[in-house]
Amino acid sequence: MLRWLTAGESHGQELIAIVEGLPSGIPVTLDRLRADLARRKLGYGRGARMKFEQDELTLSGGVVHGKTLGSPVAVRIGNTEWPKWTEVMGVEPLAEDLPGRGRSAPLTRPRPGHADLVGMQKYDFDEARPILERASARETAARVALGAVAKAFLEELGIELVSHTLAIGPVRVPEGAALPVPADVDALDADPVRCFDAATSALMVAEIDDAHKEGDTLGGVVEVLAYGLPPGLGSHVHWDRRLDSQLAAALMGIQAIKGVEVGDGFETTRRRGSAAHDELYRQDGVISRETDRAGGTEGGMSTGTVLRVRAGMKPIATVPHALHTIDVATGEDAAAHHQRSDVCAVPAAGVVAEAMTALVLANAVLEKFGGDSVGETRRNLESYLAAIPEA
Amino acid sequence: MLRWLTAGESHGQELIAIVEGLPSGIPVTLDRLRADLARRKLGYGRGARMKFEQDELTLSGGVVHGKTLGSPVAVRIGNTEWPKWTEVMGVEPLAEDLPGRGRSAPLTRPRPGHADLVGMQKYDFDEARPILERASARETAARVALGAVAKAFLEELGIELVSHTLAIGPVRVPEGAALPVPADVDALDADPVRCFDAATSALMVAEIDDAHKEGDTLGGVVEVLAYGLPPGLGSHVHWDRRLDSQLAAALMGIQAIKGVEVGDGFETTRRRGSAAHDELYRQDGVISRETDRAGGTEGGMSTGTVLRVRAGMKPIATVPHALHTIDVATGEDAAAHHQRSDVCAVPAAGVVAEAMTALVLANAVLEKFGGDSVGETRRNLESYLAAIPEA
Amino acid sequence: MLRWLTAGESHGQELIAIVEGLPSGIPVTLDRLRADLARRKLGYGRGARMKFEQDELTLSGGVVHGKTLGSPVAVRIGNTEWPKWTEVMGVEPLAEDLPGRGRSAPLTRPRPGHADLVGMQKYDFDEARPILERASARETAARVALGAVAKAFLEELGIELVSHTLAIGPVRVPEGAALPVPADVDALDADPVRCFDAATSALMVAEIDDAHKEGDTLGGVVEVLAYGLPPGLGSHVHWDRRLDSQLAAALMGIQAIKGVEVGDGFETTRRRGSAAHDELYRQDGVISRETDRAGGTEGGMSTGTVLRVRAGMKPIATVPHALHTIDVATGEDAAAHHQRSDVCAVPAAGVVAEAMTALVLANAVLEKFGGDSVGETRRNLESYLAAIPEA
Amino acid sequence: MLRWLTAGESHGQELIAIVEGLPSGIPVTLDRLRADLARRKLGYGRGARMKFEQDELTLSGGVVHGKTLGSPVAVRIGNTEWPKWTEVMGVEPLAEDLPGRGRSAPLTRPRPGHADLVGMQKYDFDEARPILERASARETAARVALGAVAKAFLEELGIELVSHTLAIGPVRVPEGAALPVPADVDALDADPVRCFDAATSALMVAEIDDAHKEGDTLGGVVEVLAYGLPPGLGSHVHWDRRLDSQLAAALMGIQAIKGVEVGDGFETTRRRGSAAHDELYRQDGVISRETDRAGGTEGGMSTGTVLRVRAGMKPIATVPHALHTIDVATGEDAAAHHQRSDVCAVPAAGVVAEAMTALVLANAVLEKFGGDSVGETRRNLESYLAAIPEA
Repeated sequence: MLRWLTAGESHGQELIAIVEGLPSGIPVTLDRLRADLARRKLGYGRGARMKFEQDELTLSGGVVHGKTLGSPVAVRIGNTEWPKWTEVMGVEPLAEDLPGRGRSAPLTRPRPGHADLVGMQKYDFDEARPILERASARETAARVALGAVAKAFLEELGIELVSHTLAIGPVRVPEGAALPVPADVDALDADPVRCFDAATSALMVAEIDDAHKEGDTLGGVVEVLAYGLPPGLGSHVHWDRRLDSQLAAALMGIQAIKGVEVGDGFETTRRRGSAAHDELYRQDGVISRETDRAGGTEGGMSTGTVLRVRAGMKPIATVPHALHTIDVATGEDAAAHHQRSDVCAVPAAGVVAEAMTALVLANAVLEKFGGDSVGETRRNLESYLAAIPEA
Repeated sequence: MLRWLTAGESHGQELIAIVEGLPSGIPVTLDRLRADLARRKLGYGRGARMKFEQDELTLSGGVVHGKTLGSPVAVRIGNTEWPKWTEVMGVEPLAEDLPGRGRSAPLTRPRPGHADLVGMQKYDFDEARPILERASARETAARVALGAVAKAFLEELGIELVSHTLAIGPVRVPEGAALPVPADVDALDADPVRCFDAATSALMVAEIDDAHKEGDTLGGVVEVLAYGLPPGLGSHVHWDRRLDSQLAAALMGIQAIKGVEVGDGFETTRRRGSAAHDELYRQDGVISRETDRAGGTEGGMSTGTVLRVRAGMKPIATVPHALHTIDVATGEDAAAHHQRSDVCAVPAAGVVAEAMTALVLANAVLEKFGGDSVGETRRNLESYLAAIPEA
Repeated sequence: MLRWLTAGESHGQELIAIVEGLPSGIPVTLDRLRADLARRKLGYGRGARMKFEQDELTLSGGVVHGKTLGSPVAVRIGNTEWPKWTEVMGVEPLAEDLPGRGRSAPLTRPRPGHADLVGMQKYDFDEARPILERASARETAARVALGAVAKAFLEELGIELVSHTLAIGPVRVPEGAALPVPADVDALDADPVRCFDAATSALMVAEIDDAHKEGDTLGGVVEVLAYGLPPGLGSHVHWDRRLDSQLAAALMGIQAIKGVEVGDGFETTRRRGSAAHDELYRQDGVISRETDRAGGTEGGMSTGTVLRVRAGMKPIATVPHALHTIDVATGEDAAAHHQRSDVCAVPAAGVVAEAMTALVLANAVLEKFGGDSVGETRRNLESYLAAIPEA
Repeated sequence: MLRWLTAGESHGQELIAIVEGLPSGIPVTLDRLRADLARRKLGYGRGARMKFEQDELTLSGGVVHGKTLGSPVAVRIGNTEWPKWTEVMGVEPLAEDLPGRGRSAPLTRPRPGHADLVGMQKYDFDEARPILERASARETAARVALGAVAKAFLEELGIELVSHTLAIGPVRVPEGAALPVPADVDALDADPVRCFDAATSALMVAEIDDAHKEGDTLGGVVEVLAYGLPPGLGSHVHWDRRLDSQLAAALMGIQAIKGVEVGDGFETTRRRGSAAHDELYRQDGVISRETDRAGGTEGGMSTGTVLRVRAGMKPIATVPHALHTIDVATGEDAAAHHQRSDVCAVPAAGVVAEAMTALVLANAVLEKFGGDSVGETRRNLESYLAAIPEA
């Protein structure tokens, strides 16, 4: 069983994350984590913060000499802007008689589409700062760092993940376009919107330019693919053991995600049964499928074909063309706070979705194969595969 | 914290379910549970089994004199067909020299779109019976029974659920159609496909007739609405505390579900930010929203407006027009086993989705308000609402 | 990960239990479960209820033809006295105008040493019936049934459990007495107090006779031994992964247990370090220990030597010589309700402790070795053992 | 529900801990955490490391201006010796051709009584360094820091903890000695062994001096008391909801603990029933107990009287007078590594046990009362207490 927690505020000193339950012997380096943190900032349409948001990375537990120990792995991602925020976000109590707190004027105009208003009600605050600091998507950097560790584990077992952009706003990759494979990841990361279809990518960039010009924002859809999975991760025996259920929770648990699909998802609901499933054939003594409509799961279990899951992201809620709100201090009409200038964060969301998928799969692998060292998990996996009878 | 488990095979003696963690004082009767079990069988396009699948219901723990005790609630749903299955599904070891097992000829032709093949690989069986018995949607009866208990709890707090059918195959309720409210539930249950839009309902029935004629099956989309939620269920502080994440897991954890949406879901991903969120206004001293595009959650928390979640169901995988498979005993091409004659189970899926939503919400309520008796939970809820400042 | 829940009231229709997460292929029969349920009633000093408390056992999920399927296993234990209790413990609401409820006069004199008073306060009841029905040790029958399933799994891996009585009241097996091994279980069960030391057993019986004569009750200490464990169950890496922590929770979670020890426990705290640990020697190429003071764990992990844990049980709180209490209906002084006549339940507590230990160990085995069939778990275990280098 | 994880190795850069699930508004300061970290180093008989093990404390998440936000709280405790260990414990892979690693000669002589040997077997290491770094009691500093946060929360609800030393080796506080109350904490911390009985304290110091002279080590027993608990934390309805079960897990989950007791614990097992329980009386309209033999729990729930739990610690396993072991690199007999010079760590164990108890109680409070701000939890607690009827 894998457990992990993240902590830290958007403008606080740092983000911290711990993942507990990984075996020993996973190759983990700072460079590897940095690479994924950099990928998380990719994407045409990101604002200024992505540029100054450099990640000072520290691995302070669970890894020695480039390998995990089996003990909890801890990661810290320093906030390079912290010196500017020590007063507003300082840990120690404020002196009672301190005059104005500079940038920390109370944020009393909750932003629609954000956690602001309901967070203030739930946690009993009269301004949004204590809420938005944690609700911010900055927190996903911590997940990406842990996801990089999970991916390193999965790679030792021959499992590789790919994420890409399927849609930005109304612009979508055509049905039937080729799926990227692991060898395509560098090319994907080099594309301005992490889209595998060049023509669509150009249209997406144009859409972002147009939205930017209009003072508006965009959402979209990302897809994560997992190659090399064994059959039998997850289970049909109880709903919360289903791999698809766990993946849905993980993807919907990302900020701004409003929809999740496995395989062809909602498109499947519109097909008839005779054209909606993956028929079974025999090839070289092995049972195989010629289609992957199901996205690599049947009965809540990985089938061994490519896993394919999607997450739909709403447009960024901090719209330059500010939304209507109420100032809770006065009860007056107001325009929502506007704090950043991103038009579209979909390409980055793919990297976050990839991290979440990796964490779910790493847990599913451990649930099925156990193992306290990478070698033990791999040995158990290989002996399981060897024992599956040919058809 | 609510915990619940279900057990039982499709053709076994009975289904069993336990839910643990509910407060005392919830009014629970057998009639109430029976009503929801009957609703789960509704829907034009269901096959013969729904008719003979009568539910012999027993409440054997946690309820005395019509009220919960605070102890675990246990439910049993007897299988009226059990006498026919005592040999095939008997608990005791078989005598070694027993000749043929009648109906229990090994099921060696795994059905595409089912757990059969991968389940056999995972659990090391050479036929599909031990897998399909548990993977069957019959198990959802146990969830519906527990969901009825959860709904009884929520009603004590003024929270009511409604489920309805949004789409069957390509036939879909038009955008902007009115949402059903709790008072509409009887009318919904009386509709042949549990659709709130009469014209669409007729088209759905025609679509089912057509699919039936073609020897084919259909999927679709259901929606669950929750009325009366307080703001602040779930939380933005950690991904797995998000209410939307928990709902996504619960809905995707239902057999045959391939997609989940919160609010306008994937439609939102195609909108621009200025038209995708719910602006805030002041009305009678209270901050309110004029739209509900978000489906009643912001930052992973209920906002107090109507919660709205959707699940997309693939067409029934047991297609009369049988799918191609391999006989694992011989390695030969084969047609998949075909065991039932439902064309469409979407209307029933709405009732199951309602149950799963109820269980998630009941847990979220307890997480936020605690309480070991209904009175205590209600008191805590009311004092929380009273403390939220007017705008 | 193993999950399990029990449900049911002491005088309700039945007890129900579900255990989820066990692999397929475990040999499970009703006889095996009945045998352990019968062992739970053993022991000199038990009252009348043990005799009429016959267990009508049903296995209604997860087992077909004597083997587990990998799906949740459900057990029911019928209450043969149920016909006498249908009114007092009936599920359906009472008619408003029903006169007296016979035996169900409100129990308003909470018994010291029981859950009665605090349970009424917590769950908001004005009498103790709704509390004592669930707090009763009758519930442990459900655990014993599940423990029997867990033991069947462990036996497939060469792991066997033994429980025995170490002390009853002040009478205690002498230090240094021989430990029973699995072959001794029948002899232990035949002993009137499940004590392995004949002379001590006789003294224990005399102590029970004396307490009975005085209208008093007795507690004592039981010990559970596990033979055949591999090294490395549990872990030092996080406190709640420690096997000793999990065992402590399981044993202290039994009704009436007030103390738990691993190995020599509190005796170890009085020794000096040079005489408190198990030194390591080499024998036939293998590192071994000549003592087992630690009780088979180091750093929270099983070492491969005999696991040894103890639970201390308080005297039965329903003392014939009734304890002082207050009638909550009147505020007057009163004598506590007195409902049964057991003098001592320590021998039975050993069987319950054995069941709880089995459930913890089964979970620890799955955590380390994974596996969805017994064959897979065993294969993983064996390849792990084979990979441990000789010293 | 409270979740918490710790990470970090004994000689690594730092310890890290995250606790998730606490409400907003808890007053938390660095000074408060530092004070408890300093208390953890108290006690006559500690070696040199306690002196140089200064704690560089950082609160890097969840706290702003001295109050919690409701988001996860993260703590770091820097290792001031880290500069000496950057090579041995460095995160980055070692250059292949690096000559000797200085202090990091492989630790191939596993120490009896430690996690060394079994940890190496489980995690597949050929030396003990990767195991002992995490198994070390240094990790408890992280728990103490989180415990300080939990205690701050509990204090807001009127709940206060006290820990003290009951026994060191064979020297024990006499039966019937007075219990310390919260006002005594400073005096306890000033005592060389944190013992409340002055005469016993002097004997304990003499015992430590004697053990030191003999090159030996000592264990003992600590007790934690909780004042101000409401009735009804924990529950009788399921074994793992029992407060005593959770406390047993927490205390047994501390390094070197071999026994746990609630109330009079094993002493109770030797008494007869008529003298083992806490009779109920009426005083000023309230039901009260004149004794506290049960240690403040009945039926697994807090009763409202003083909670009293004990943990028994084995003698320090690193005995100056080195224990016998085997060098796993050579298979030869050897003396165990000896790395520190503490004679007795019992006084510190009390502080750790206090922290673990605080974390369990904070979770139990949230489970019963919910609440996302301290004010909300307190309001719910107070309305619960007000609703308990007088007797």
